Amino acid sequence: MSNPATFINVIDVDPSKQQELIDVLLEGAGQVISQRPGFLSVRVLASLDGSRVVNIAEWASAGDAKATQSDPAAADYARRAAALGRPSPGVYAVVGEFSA
Amino acid sequence: MSNPATFINVIDVDPSKQQELIDVLLEGAGQVISQRPGFLSVRVLASLDGSRVVNIAEWASAGDAKATQSDPAAADYARRAAALGRPSPGVYAVVGEFSA
Repeated sequence: MSNPATFINVIDVDPSKQQELIDVLLEGAGQVISQRPGFLSVRVLASLDGSRVVNIAEWASAGDAKATQSDPAAADYARRAAALGRPSPGVYAVVGEFSA
Repeated sequence: MSNPATFINVIDVDPSKQQELIDVLLEGAGQVISQRPGFLSVRVLASLDGSRVVNIAEWASAGDAKATQSDPAAADYARRAAALGRPSPGVYAVVGEFSA
């Protein structure tokens, strides 16, 4: 049995390109990521200072997250994002949480 | 009216110190962050390669997130985390999301 996994891509960006980067990530989320096996959710966040965008996708397993990273259509969006900023992708496990 | 805000701290860490950093963040989440005004949720994620920890806290407003960053008890946990790794905190807005 496998555990859920979270893909997080932290992308440093020039504030003048933040909106363009957001548009690419949201297009990729809707067109590709959300259609992949094991997809649970994806969320795109913009830093209020304009210098970063964070893409967070939840997957049924780390294998699903990694398979999507090597999928050609997903890799094409990753390349378009990398042309606009400096990405730092990784696969994570939730180790704790609290809610109000 | 204010919108919800997300505080994200991406912390690079030596893999030998990842667990210790997680312990500090979870202690701070339970003892301080979850007790602050405007708190909605906090989640700590560990990269599978051991080199990063990401702390994600949701707040009722950006003002609540920023007030917590300058709260002395929260700042003390931030200092303890910074002694174990290289933090990069910021306040974000959700700009889009999809769910399965």
